[in-house]
Order: sequence, then structure tokens, then C-alpha cells
Amino acid sequence: MAFKVGLLGLGTVGTGTADILLNPSQRHPLLKELEIHRVGVRSLDKARTVNLPPELLTTDLESIVTDPEVDIVVEVIGGLEPARSLILQAIAHGKHVVTANKAVIARYNDEIFTAATDAGVYVLIEAAVAGGIPVIEPLKQSLCANRLQTITGIVNGTTNYILSRMQSEGSDFNAVLADAQQLGYAEADPTADVDGFDAADKIAILASLAFGGRIKLEEVHREGIRQITAADITYADKLGFVIKLLATAKRDNPTFDEALNSDQLQVRVHPTLVPKDHPLASINGVFNAVLIEGDPVGQVMFFGPGAGSGPTASAVVSDILNIAAILKVERGSAVQANGKPLLDPLLACSHQHYCTIAPIEELETRFYARVLAEDSPGVIGRLGTCFGQHNVSLESVVQIGLRDNRAEIVVITHHVREGNFRQALQEIKAVDAIADIPSTLRVL
Amino acid sequence: MAFKVGLLGLGTVGTGTADILLNPSQRHPLLKELEIHRVGVRSLDKARTVNLPPELLTTDLESIVTDPEVDIVVEVIGGLEPARSLILQAIAHGKHVVTANKAVIARYNDEIFTAATDAGVYVLIEAAVAGGIPVIEPLKQSLCANRLQTITGIVNGTTNYILSRMQSEGSDFNAVLADAQQLGYAEADPTADVDGFDAADKIAILASLAFGGRIKLEEVHREGIRQITAADITYADKLGFVIKLLATAKRDNPTFDEALNSDQLQVRVHPTLVPKDHPLASINGVFNAVLIEGDPVGQVMFFGPGAGSGPTASAVVSDILNIAAILKVERGSAVQANGKPLLDPLLACSHQHYCTIAPIEELETRFYARVLAEDSPGVIGRLGTCFGQHNVSLESVVQIGLRDNRAEIVVITHHVREGNFRQALQEIKAVDAIADIPSTLRVL
Repeated sequence: MAFKVGLLGLGTVGTGTADILLNPSQRHPLLKELEIHRVGVRSLDKARTVNLPPELLTTDLESIVTDPEVDIVVEVIGGLEPARSLILQAIAHGKHVVTANKAVIARYNDEIFTAATDAGVYVLIEAAVAGGIPVIEPLKQSLCANRLQTITGIVNGTTNYILSRMQSEGSDFNAVLADAQQLGYAEADPTADVDGFDAADKIAILASLAFGGRIKLEEVHREGIRQITAADITYADKLGFVIKLLATAKRDNPTFDEALNSDQLQVRVHPTLVPKDHPLASINGVFNAVLIEGDPVGQVMFFGPGAGSGPTASAVVSDILNIAAILKVERGSAVQANGKPLLDPLLACSHQHYCTIAPIEELETRFYARVLAEDSPGVIGRLGTCFGQHNVSLESVVQIGLRDNRAEIVVITHHVREGNFRQALQEIKAVDAIADIPSTLRVL
Repeated sequence: MAFKVGLLGLGTVGTGTADILLNPSQRHPLLKELEIHRVGVRSLDKARTVNLPPELLTTDLESIVTDPEVDIVVEVIGGLEPARSLILQAIAHGKHVVTANKAVIARYNDEIFTAATDAGVYVLIEAAVAGGIPVIEPLKQSLCANRLQTITGIVNGTTNYILSRMQSEGSDFNAVLADAQQLGYAEADPTADVDGFDAADKIAILASLAFGGRIKLEEVHREGIRQITAADITYADKLGFVIKLLATAKRDNPTFDEALNSDQLQVRVHPTLVPKDHPLASINGVFNAVLIEGDPVGQVMFFGPGAGSGPTASAVVSDILNIAAILKVERGSAVQANGKPLLDPLLACSHQHYCTIAPIEELETRFYARVLAEDSPGVIGRLGTCFGQHNVSLESVVQIGLRDNRAEIVVITHHVREGNFRQALQEIKAVDAIADIPSTLRVL
């Protein structure tokens, strides 16, 4: 008996997916029990690199998600609509769903997973985060015994490519972005990548899995990399750091009191100074990496290609196979109160509540600030005093050189409360001898 | 309804396992449905750091694997016997098994997995390779759509610790080994680690999973690190390499012909010169890492703690939870011909045949050789000629310096057949002007 796949979309990822399904040799034998039943496309006439019988193709995507013969719907059309509606319709018709759509999952996880649980179907999303790197399933299964503490990821290849080139070439952001666009590493409208929206979607999904609660995307603090200058990268380098766009999700209170249910998370995306000996510092180019810290496992890191047809299709088809394996052994003889199959508690989404996310002012972290000031005695003293008055203790204050006749001073703080640091900056900006504070960045 | 765990062994890993089972707070909710039913120990009187009711403890391990109430047997006593017999007895009594025992799995996988399939029970082994790093389950599930090509791992923490210290301190093997033994990073009898037996067990297990066939352990080529000298590490460093003990499993024929079923593997453990910009080069100390290459995923790497109570227990308990999740939804309503439950084809071991392993002479790789010769004109020419006569083409020949009045020459070859290289060496050793070839190493 073959399991029938309805494929929505035949773009980059859809083509990669079909490629694997049509070439099972030397792969897991279960692949031979999968069959592409229908493929939904925008145009029937387009030339395709994948060799599919033309009668499988249709422009009527709804007919696929409602087709009684389809067991598993694979959504790889991307974008919010009609992807969201098609996923919900597929679930309503009792189909299992595999999707690579981080934007839909980050925004509509509530309605999608509630519907999936009610219907007794799986919605698997390995391809939605970090492309081909196994991270969703390891979080759900291989690390499920841990009390997870922190997830820190380089989850956007475009920004990592831009920052890596700025680092190696000493170039400015706009020049590298323009080149990346020409080379196809950045979109014509690069907003989703360079302003951190894509990374925010992904860390929201990872946080939800790691900490067992839903995440309101608008509560994820998000900063992009447009403001990063060659000067900052040079100074960071001198101080022993590289600058990376990190997506972080962290439990705020290691001393959790279950009775108080005092769990509070930080979920944030921002450029960060990463010490050069940190495992994430050497992740360059379009590669992604996700570092997970848990008790008792310690630190584990997953590294690999975060995008692209092949890697993303690897994740999509692995999810399809995982569902086929479940169907094969007829898992689900146990039923819920509504008569629908009971889902595997590790693979299904079991949480209902929203996580509490701490405001960014409450974050305790180290900071880097670049300050332009009059080149006169006493300026460093004034800086130190202002920071001190706001409980911001400093690790180092270094005058790097002169720029436009001003002294360029780089400050690194100890771990301080972000709110205090921002208040100190306000006050410092008002000091006559201070010309400008062109950049402030967080330090890992 | 609680799932009852019978724990065999309360040493380092057993204690870590019990610790997690007794502290489910902030971990996956399914953990609360697990119950430690019995614990098998060698002595009832020993002081324990974990707080277990004394009536759970027994020295009669057989009574645990035959106890009708036990659902899942966890074997963490280590060693070959009685571990193997207890695992087989547990399977015969219909128990699912979780084990961290790489030695037993590498040697007895045939009888254990055949028995498990017949009985319709799972034997999960995440903890057997690379401690807390998820690698077994990702291979089985997250990467199952791939045509896997190569697995390259640093899977023994002791040897990686020794080589890292030799690298950073310029020390010799024996001095670092003695210190590692004092610090508890190496055993009093270090044979299993430093001679590569432990790494061979692990790569045999990974190869079996990746390539879907059984591996005869005696066919795994194995060399340890005792012969590595400070001089080799220094010269490797100058040439842009670090020396690592790599465990490698590789499909020999990328142009696979299914009709011929011509699959042939290389499975080998040996010290290797790794280019400094390779992802495995920066894995230092007791950490482990496994790099997997597949089509279409490309390269993915998993990094983390390869041993220790906490990390290993993380893997053990995750396996327990994966079995509990299956029991929870009563997977297995589909049955085999013998009436026993049909197992999930991704989680169970489905292969029966043995893989063909290529003899080491057929390996094509680069080599490093350190040669001591008379400091006279024409020696490098003689070397080049001898290698050339055996089809060994050279990438570089560098006279590094003088040692004991002899010229010390370091040769790096292109990719050549190992058999040819060895024949050339035999001939070179017979040349009068050549005093010695103290080391030859493979180059990644």
C-alpha cells in the first residue's frame, strides 16, 4: 500500500521534494511506499526540471487538500495566503500536513495546532527553521528529557553572508548587500532578512517548542543589521569579537518555582558581538547554526545549510517519511474524547498557553557602545560617572582613535540591565562634550 | 497510567538517569508518566547521591528483566556480560530496551535487533554514540530522506582531549596521557580509548544506521594515537592542519548501480590531518562532533558533550520518553505475521544483510609522511621518483629542518591509493640515503 502525497507548490523546494520522491534508490526503503498523487502549481505551461506526468499537475490547489485519496499534504508555496487556508482545509479533511512555511507557523500556530490536535493529524515543520539542519525533531525527541535553558541561533543565511563578507573584506553594509542581491543571496526587497523578520519567525517557533508554550510574534524583540558599520566590525575584531545576527530564546529564571509558575522568557533577534572562541563565531557565509543549552545535556550545536532547494527538501521529505512510518504501524488506535486519534505527545503540539515574554528593558546583558566625543581630558571620566550613576558597571573604556577630529571611544559594559543602560545613554547624549553615539550593540 | 522503568545499573549514567526521572519539573510533561519500578545494583549498601526508596533496589537483575510489570528496561551497567544476556532476556519478555552500551550494540547488533524485531519491541541506543549529542535519532528520522555519503566523527573525548593538549602545549603523548589519567579524563588502562577501540564501536554503529546494513566490527580498520609525536603535530600545524582521531564511514561508489548492488563502504578509525578551516578542526577538548554528508542535504554537523553523567542520561531518558510516547498512543495495532506488533520502520532496525567493507589498501586518500634522510643533494629527487613509480603523485615535499644530523622531510601526497603508497614506502625504506620514516598519517 502506497501513501499518497499531495504537493502544493513546485518552486525551488517543491522541485527538490519531488526529486527525492522520484529517486528513492539508496535512501530509506520506506520512500518506495510514497507516491506523488497530485501537484498544485500556478501555471500548467511552465517548463519544469523535474519529470512528472503532466496529468498529476493541477492549478486547483483546493482540490488537492480535499481529495479523499491524499494522506499527506505538503505545503511549499510559501507566503501567508492561500498557504494558511489550504493548511487549515487539509487538516479539516483529516490530512497530515508537512510545511516549510515559517511565516505561517510563527503567526498562526495557535489555530493550526489546535485544529490539528482536534482532527488527530500531524503538522510537521522541520523545514521551517534552519533548512536541512535537523533541529525541530531533535528538540521534540532527542532532547526532550532536558530542562531547556537557552537557544541561540544564526538562522538567517542572508544576513550571515553579508556580515561574514563585511568582516572578511572590511566593506560597508550597502556595498555588500548590493553585491549579495546581484549574486542571488539577497532578495530585491531584503527587508524580511536584513531587518530580522525571518529570524524572528524562526526563533518564535524554536522558543515555542523548547519552552512548551505559544509565542506572540509581536512580543519578539527584533533589530536588523542595517546599522552595522565597517567601523563597528573593525573595533569588535580588535576587542576579540565578531558581529553576528543572533536569534535568542532564553528562560529568564533558572531558579524556577513551580508553585509560582514564574516562567518568563526572553525572545529576541539582534546583532550581537560574539567572542571569537564561541562556537557560533566561526559560522560564516550562508550557513546556519543553532546552539541549545539544557540541563543536563549542556551545550549542543547543530550546523549546516539553512536554505536552498536540496537541504530544505531533505527536511520536507524526512517529515513526510516520519508521518508515513506512523501510518504504516497504524499508530492511533488510542483515541481522544472526540473519537479522533490520540497524537504522539512528543510529535504533536500539546501546549495551549502563551509564554510570558520579558520586556527588553529587563534584559541583563553586556553592551558595546561607540561614542564620539571632544578630544579633551575628563571625557572618559564623565562617561564612567554617568554609567555608574545608572548602575552600569564598565568592563573597558578604550579610546580607539580620532574620527572627524573627535575622539572615538569604545565602551564594553559588564552584565547590566538594558533599561539602566538606555537611561545612562540618554543622559550621556546630553553632555556637551559628547558629539554622538553612532552605535550600541549587545555582547554575548 | 504510568509507564514502568526497570533500571539496570546505578553508576554514573544510571544515577544521572534516575535524577532526571525523579525531577520532571520544567521538562516534557510526559516525564511525569514515567515511574522507576526497580533498580538493579551490585551492592545494596553503597551510599548513593540519588534519593531512591531502598525497596526499589535489588541485586537480582534478572528479576527486573523478567518482571511482568516493567515496560521499559534501561541497561546502563556497561561491559559485554551480563549486559548482553540481560538485554536479550528483556526482549524475550516483551520489554522495550534503552541502552548506552556501544560495546554490546557494535558486537551483538545482529542477534539483538533480530530478537527485537521478532518480539515487536524497540531497542533505542541514542546514548551509545556521542553521549548527549543527538545523532542516532537524527540519522534515523530527520535525515532519512537523504542518500547518505559520509559520516566523519570525533567520537572519543579522551583522545580528542589528549590531542588538543598536545596541540596547544607542544607536549608528547605519554606526558599528556599521564596527566589525563590523573585528572580522570583517561582510564588507568587507556587501551579502549587511545587505541581506537571505542571509536571503532561507535563508527560501526553509525555506519550501520547510515547505510542500512550490518557491520562486522573486525572489518573496521583501526589505528590509535600512541604513535603521534609532538613533531608531527608541529609540522601539521605549519602546513595548516591539526591532527584528530577521526572515525569515518563512507560509501565508496558515488555512482551506485542499483542493478549491480555494488555498494561498498569504507569504515575506519585513524589519526588524520584535518585542514584548519574544516568544521571538525576546531572541536577541542573532550567534546565530540559528527559531520554527516548526504544528498541532497549537503553537510550537517552535530557538536556537544560526548560523555559524562548528565549528557549521557539526557540521551537515555529521551529514548525512554520516545518509547513512552509510542506506548501512549498504542502504536502497534498493525501486526507482523507472527502476531507481534509491527515496528516503526524508521525507529526499528530493518536491515538483515552485512555491508561489504573495502580493504584499507583500496582507500584513496592523501597522505602525510615524515622522512629522515641523509642531508645530501638528490634525496628529494629519489623520494619523488620512488613515489612516482608507484603512481603516488605528490602535493608537496618540504625539508623542515635537521634532526640528529639527518634532514627531516615532510611529504604530502595527492589523493592516491593506499596500497600504492605503502608499496612506495617499502621501496623508499630500502634506499640507503633514507634513515627512517617515523610517521605516516592520512590527510582529510
